[in-house]
Amino acid sequence: MEKIRNEGSSGGDTAESASRRPGRARLTIRDVARMSNVSVGTVSKALNKNGSLRQETRDRVIAVAKELGFRPNDLAQSLHRGKTFTVGLISNDSFGRFTMPIMEGLEECLADSRVAVFLCNATDDPAREAQHVEQLVGKRVDGIVVTARRADQRAKLVVPARDVPVLYVFSRTDDPDAYCLLPDDEGGAKLAVEHLIRLGRRRIAHITGPERFEAVQLRRNGFRKALAAADIAEGDGFYMPGVWSEGWGREAVEQLFKGRRGPPDAIFCGNDQIARGASDALRERGISVPKTVSIVGFDNWQVIADATRPALTSVDMNLKDLGRQAGLRLLEMIAGKRLHGVRRLACTLVVRDSCGGREAGIPS
Amino acid sequence: MEKIRNEGSSGGDTAESASRRPGRARLTIRDVARMSNVSVGTVSKALNKNGSLRQETRDRVIAVAKELGFRPNDLAQSLHRGKTFTVGLISNDSFGRFTMPIMEGLEECLADSRVAVFLCNATDDPAREAQHVEQLVGKRVDGIVVTARRADQRAKLVVPARDVPVLYVFSRTDDPDAYCLLPDDEGGAKLAVEHLIRLGRRRIAHITGPERFEAVQLRRNGFRKALAAADIAEGDGFYMPGVWSEGWGREAVEQLFKGRRGPPDAIFCGNDQIARGASDALRERGISVPKTVSIVGFDNWQVIADATRPALTSVDMNLKDLGRQAGLRLLEMIAGKRLHGVRRLACTLVVRDSCGGREAGIPS
Repeated sequence: MEKIRNEGSSGGDTAESASRRPGRARLTIRDVARMSNVSVGTVSKALNKNGSLRQETRDRVIAVAKELGFRPNDLAQSLHRGKTFTVGLISNDSFGRFTMPIMEGLEECLADSRVAVFLCNATDDPAREAQHVEQLVGKRVDGIVVTARRADQRAKLVVPARDVPVLYVFSRTDDPDAYCLLPDDEGGAKLAVEHLIRLGRRRIAHITGPERFEAVQLRRNGFRKALAAADIAEGDGFYMPGVWSEGWGREAVEQLFKGRRGPPDAIFCGNDQIARGASDALRERGISVPKTVSIVGFDNWQVIADATRPALTSVDMNLKDLGRQAGLRLLEMIAGKRLHGVRRLACTLVVRDSCGGREAGIPS
Repeated sequence: MEKIRNEGSSGGDTAESASRRPGRARLTIRDVARMSNVSVGTVSKALNKNGSLRQETRDRVIAVAKELGFRPNDLAQSLHRGKTFTVGLISNDSFGRFTMPIMEGLEECLADSRVAVFLCNATDDPAREAQHVEQLVGKRVDGIVVTARRADQRAKLVVPARDVPVLYVFSRTDDPDAYCLLPDDEGGAKLAVEHLIRLGRRRIAHITGPERFEAVQLRRNGFRKALAAADIAEGDGFYMPGVWSEGWGREAVEQLFKGRRGPPDAIFCGNDQIARGASDALRERGISVPKTVSIVGFDNWQVIADATRPALTSVDMNLKDLGRQAGLRLLEMIAGKRLHGVRRLACTLVVRDSCGGREAGIPS
C-alpha cells in the first residue's frame, strides 16, 4: 500500500486573518517566577524537570504554576486563568465513521496541552443540539468544535455565551466569521483521476452519490479538471450521479457496459461502497479489475476497501489530521487569535490493487 | 424485515442487590416549597407549568428549584444538591460502531433528567484512560460509564474519587462489586439457530471469529444448545473458528463444500462480515442462497446486511437499548442504589432474505 498526497489544497483555500483580541493579559513564565519568588531560570528548570533544584523549590514552583493555570507550552501559555481545559465536540454523525477519527486527532493534539475533549452526539435534532450547547457552556468549556456526518453547510451554531470560540470541522456554515476546516474534495478527486491517467487510462467514468451533496459537486469538478488538464474528453454518459450504495455501483456498471460501444477502461467512484458494487458487477460480468478496468474509491473506509476484490485504491480525507489541525487552530482561538474563512486540507491517494500499474510495470 | 426477540436473557442473569447508601438526604418537593414560602401544590403547578399562578410566583419557585438542583422527576429527585448533571462515557472503540448506538441510547435516557453525556475516547492506551478519568473526576461527573469495542473482560477502571458510580456496558470486569450490562450472546445465537431449525434446516455450520473472544465462546454455546434441544447432531467440522473477515467467510465456505459429502444446508455466522463473505462464495459457486443454503449473521450492521445479496438476516445486540438501560441503572446508582453483577439483555433476530421461509411458505 502506498500513499500519494496532493501538494496543496486547491480551490478552497481562503485568507485567514489573525488578530489578537485586545485587553487579554498573557500569563508568562515571569508571572510564575514573581509569584514563586524565584528566577525565571528556576521556573524553567522546575517545570521542565531538569537541572539541579531542591525538591521543595520544585514543588513550590509547580504548585504556583498550577495555581496560576500556567502551562509550559507556547500555545497553552496564552491560556489564562479561569480556563477549564475542556473542549466540547458536537456531532450529528450517529455512525461515528467520520467523527471518531476526527475526535482521535483532536484528542491527540489537545492531550499535549492537557485539554480534555468531550463529545456530545446531537443526532440531527436542533433541540438536542441546543441542549448540548447549553450544557457545554454551563460547564464553561474553552471552545466548541462542530462536526457532522457530511461536510455540507449547516446552520450556524448558536452559543449563548460570548467569547467561546467555535470551530467547524468536516462541517461548514455560511457565517463569514466562522472558521471551517474541510477536506479538499476537489483535490482528492484530481489525485485519483491523475493516477488513472498516469496508468494510461483514457475512458474514465465517474459513478457517484446524490448531486445535492457539496462533496459530489466538488469531486465531479476535480474529475473534470483532471480530464481537461490531460486533454481528455469526458465520455458520453460517463458522469453518473446516484446514491451512496453498492447497489448503485452495480447498476451503474450494468448501464455503462450494456451494449455500449467503447465502455470505460477506468471508474472513479464517489465513495467506497459504490466502488465495491462496481467491482463486484465487473467480476460477475467476467471483466477483469484492474487488467481491463481500473477502479478508485473515495473515503478509504478500510473495512470496505480491504474486503473488495481486488483491494480498493481509494482517496483518504485524512480525517485524523483534520482533527489535529482543528485542535491546533482551536488552541490559537482560545488564546485570542481570530480565524475565519474556509480552509481545505489535502487528501491522500492510498494505492492498493484495483488500478494495476504496479504489476503492469507502469510507475504509479 | 421482521424482528424476533428472545424471551429473556439466558445464562448470564445474576442477582442484583439494591440497597440505599446511608446518610444521603433526599431533596423533595417539600424542600422547594419551604424555601419558596409556598405550598407543595404551588410548587407542583409552577414546575409542571399548569394551573393558574402569578408569573412572579412561578418564576420564584422555578428559580428556587433550580438553585436547589431539584428536578421534577422521580429518579432525578433523588439527585441531591451538588450534583453536576454530567456523566462521562469512556470507550476504546475507535471505529465507534459499538459505542455510538450505546451513546445514543444513554443520551436519550439521560436527556430526560437533563443529564449530559460526555464521551472520551481512550483508544486502548491505559495512560490516556487514566488521564480521561482524572479529567472527568476533576469535572465532578456524577457517574462514569465504561464501554468498549468488544464485550470482553477488562481491568477494573481505577477512579481516584470515592462515590463516583461506575457502570460497564458492552464491557466487563472481574470485580464482583462491578455492575456490567452485556448483550446475551448465547441467547442471540440460539435465536438464530432455532430460526434455521424452524425453517427445516438440519445440517447447520457455524463459521465464526477467534476463540479467545468471549462472544465467540458464548455464541458457539448457543449454537450447540439449540442443536441439542432439537436433537440434531453437530456435523463433523461444522464448527469453524477463524477471524472476523469476509475473506475468512469465503475461505470457510470453500472448505465446507470442497468434495465433502453432505455439505451444510445452513450457515450461522459469528458476524456480518463473515456472513457476507460466505454469501459471496456460495453465489460464485452457483449455490443459491437461501434456496439451497440459508445464512444468518450477527451484529445487524446495516451497511453490510443491506449490501449482502440476498439481504442478510442477522442477530441484533440492541446496543441502543443497552445504552438506555445503562442510563436508567446509572441514575439509580447516582441516587444511592447499589448494583452489582452481570446482567445480559436479550438480542433480536432481524429477518431479511438470506434464510428463505417466507417465500417457501414456512412460517418464520
